Amino acid sequence: MSKIEPRTLKGFRDFLPEDQIQRQKMIEIIRASYETFGFEPLETPALEYAEILTGKYGEEGDKLMYRFRDNGDRDVALRYDLTIPLARVAAQYENEIKKPFKRYQISPVWRAENTQKGRFREFYQCDADIVGSNSLLADAEILALSANTLLALGLKNEDFVIRVNSREIISAFYDSLKLSSEQKSVAIRMVDKIDKIGEDGVREELSKNNFSDSNIKSVLNFATGKLKEGGETKEAFEKLQKIIEKASTLSPKTKFVTDFSIARGLDYYTGMIFETTLIKAPQFGSVMSGGRYDNLIGMFANKTFPAVGTSIGLDRLIAALEELKLIKTEKTVIRALVVNFEESLEKDYLKLVSDLRNAGINTMLYFDTADLKKQLSYANDRGIPFALLYGQNEAKEGLIIVKNLVTGTQEKVKFDEVINYLSIPFKTSK
Amino acid sequence: MSKIEPRTLKGFRDFLPEDQIQRQKMIEIIRASYETFGFEPLETPALEYAEILTGKYGEEGDKLMYRFRDNGDRDVALRYDLTIPLARVAAQYENEIKKPFKRYQISPVWRAENTQKGRFREFYQCDADIVGSNSLLADAEILALSANTLLALGLKNEDFVIRVNSREIISAFYDSLKLSSEQKSVAIRMVDKIDKIGEDGVREELSKNNFSDSNIKSVLNFATGKLKEGGETKEAFEKLQKIIEKASTLSPKTKFVTDFSIARGLDYYTGMIFETTLIKAPQFGSVMSGGRYDNLIGMFANKTFPAVGTSIGLDRLIAALEELKLIKTEKTVIRALVVNFEESLEKDYLKLVSDLRNAGINTMLYFDTADLKKQLSYANDRGIPFALLYGQNEAKEGLIIVKNLVTGTQEKVKFDEVINYLSIPFKTSK
Repeated sequence: MSKIEPRTLKGFRDFLPEDQIQRQKMIEIIRASYETFGFEPLETPALEYAEILTGKYGEEGDKLMYRFRDNGDRDVALRYDLTIPLARVAAQYENEIKKPFKRYQISPVWRAENTQKGRFREFYQCDADIVGSNSLLADAEILALSANTLLALGLKNEDFVIRVNSREIISAFYDSLKLSSEQKSVAIRMVDKIDKIGEDGVREELSKNNFSDSNIKSVLNFATGKLKEGGETKEAFEKLQKIIEKASTLSPKTKFVTDFSIARGLDYYTGMIFETTLIKAPQFGSVMSGGRYDNLIGMFANKTFPAVGTSIGLDRLIAALEELKLIKTEKTVIRALVVNFEESLEKDYLKLVSDLRNAGINTMLYFDTADLKKQLSYANDRGIPFALLYGQNEAKEGLIIVKNLVTGTQEKVKFDEVINYLSIPFKTSK
Repeated sequence: MSKIEPRTLKGFRDFLPEDQIQRQKMIEIIRASYETFGFEPLETPALEYAEILTGKYGEEGDKLMYRFRDNGDRDVALRYDLTIPLARVAAQYENEIKKPFKRYQISPVWRAENTQKGRFREFYQCDADIVGSNSLLADAEILALSANTLLALGLKNEDFVIRVNSREIISAFYDSLKLSSEQKSVAIRMVDKIDKIGEDGVREELSKNNFSDSNIKSVLNFATGKLKEGGETKEAFEKLQKIIEKASTLSPKTKFVTDFSIARGLDYYTGMIFETTLIKAPQFGSVMSGGRYDNLIGMFANKTFPAVGTSIGLDRLIAALEELKLIKTEKTVIRALVVNFEESLEKDYLKLVSDLRNAGINTMLYFDTADLKKQLSYANDRGIPFALLYGQNEAKEGLIIVKNLVTGTQEKVKFDEVINYLSIPFKTSK
């Protein structure tokens, strides 16, 4: 058989252990953070009937979907996000699920994105949502959860700001200008870009779209927070203030700021919306976003269910944390390599590794009796912090030489005490 | 918009929290077990170029594959197992990966199986493999790892037996009978079914395929372990014995038995092969299997890499453990519900839940000030073990009533001491 070229599809990635160890750790931190807030895990399939997914993400979403006919000629598609599958589940198991239903899901999603923009076609989302509550406390919990999860991942309060807005405020404001629905959507889209194109850019775009000077001025005042709250937006604004107040009680040192320029792309939001900007790495855009969507689940049910949620784009966040040097990379999960000097001692080696493993210490036995230098260099290359040396002399004395490969020091430890010795936290990084 | 019927594809499943909590716990146990043996995590994409996957699993495998053309007209397929992607990775990153490469991957795979046989189209595999070592210690570690992982999951040594065979023994034996290659493969297939069809069944099938009486007798003697080791199979047999001996040193109380009837379906095995039978639930078949495959990676590389591995079928194992009542189901991850008596105390509630969450105690706040009975019944239905009651009286006293919903007892605890109180292990199941 001729050789098949080993290659990965464009936009898809292999995560070798050095990367995957870190990714897994971050996922565990996110999971633990979500669970402290009382969110519980849900898992939905990678494949769905296409009709469940299409038409929910706008025209572009439908184009980017991995959609095909399966062997039974069903029209199917790979999961495009985790929100629509949640909406399906909430409707499908309506009678089994107790409300409020607080669930999280951390799973890959697939989009046939343009990879030249540095986007991936398979990437992880980490979502937490509350289904079945209208309470402002639910909105506040979503905001506080977002903040606390970033803190759990190693960010400090001064590293990020959560910018909060409300679709109700946006609607009330634009309705008051009596814009056409087309103009309204142009304005929302342009204002959402104000960080990139500036006030002048917004002014120019609105001008092109036949906005009156007074409307342009109003829109810019609104977008930059210079508009006095009152009139049409008053009620919605007070509601948002209450949400932020409650969120601040839950996560006191977090910067929650109102920002009337943010809009969030998706159409389904109905209330509070938010984005999270890393102050020292704003170029990564929002690393955690979400909002309230009270009508979405109704697409699958005979009634509507209020819902509010947050989502971390894991890949973007990792890229940003790497940039900020906030990622502590660990090359290996292995704590000790047992050096293999000679076959006659193999039973002792096997007993030693078994004891260590049973004590929960991740241990590797070198399989071949290669020379010591080669074995130590393997351990060094892999980043394994300890090498355990046990030859004929040590066997006679019932001792093991524990070599700390980071500091270069070594100590003799009794065979039976090596577990305790290795369980003690050690300086294993320079 | 007309309502879309919420439904899941046949053979695909939603795991609601009650199930997913347990699945996640099992995955974490398996992961920890794999890591103690020095295996490290790898993640490969769900989608691969079809040519990477096809032709490796026999004709049936190609038929059951989810294969389609993507938006860029590439011929792609969903991952069918975790072994071929590993083989691809080992070849693709040949120079980056230090050997021996001990990796694990716990991921879903997709097969368009006949669901009437109780099979799923999306299911999890939990694989651990060693690439780049010919050492018998590698085979032994794979066997011991398999045993120790089942023990970590709650099985006892007397609950399972690991049946070990070797493709080299099988080859040497059938070669000695001078069978045609067609007859050889019939014999291997029929003998593999001896548990189901019995010795008489095997005799009948071999007869139908023109085996001589003496060959039938030899095959049955071989399959049932009555053949004296010696002659052609001697060398391979001794090698297998050494592997089992080393595995037994690593996992002393595990029943490793030779069973010359097992063959493993896939063609790519070249050496030791094994299956794991649950003694009290043999109807579930093998819950953990694997073996040595020294030629597979060569399909993607200019040289061959020896490899040996094990795989748990998570879904089958969970089904078996449920049958054996070895699954401890936990309905929720939530430890405490804070009852919401009145809005005027909301700040105190938010402070309380924050403190508990920051201390790592999974806590839920009831969002509405519904009556106590309704809130307690919600906690009970959800299986939450503690309810925290705090009304005007408690506020005055600086106390919280901690109600144990399992035992029905309650205690008054100081507001500041409730974290310690809930951190102590408690009887939370009946």
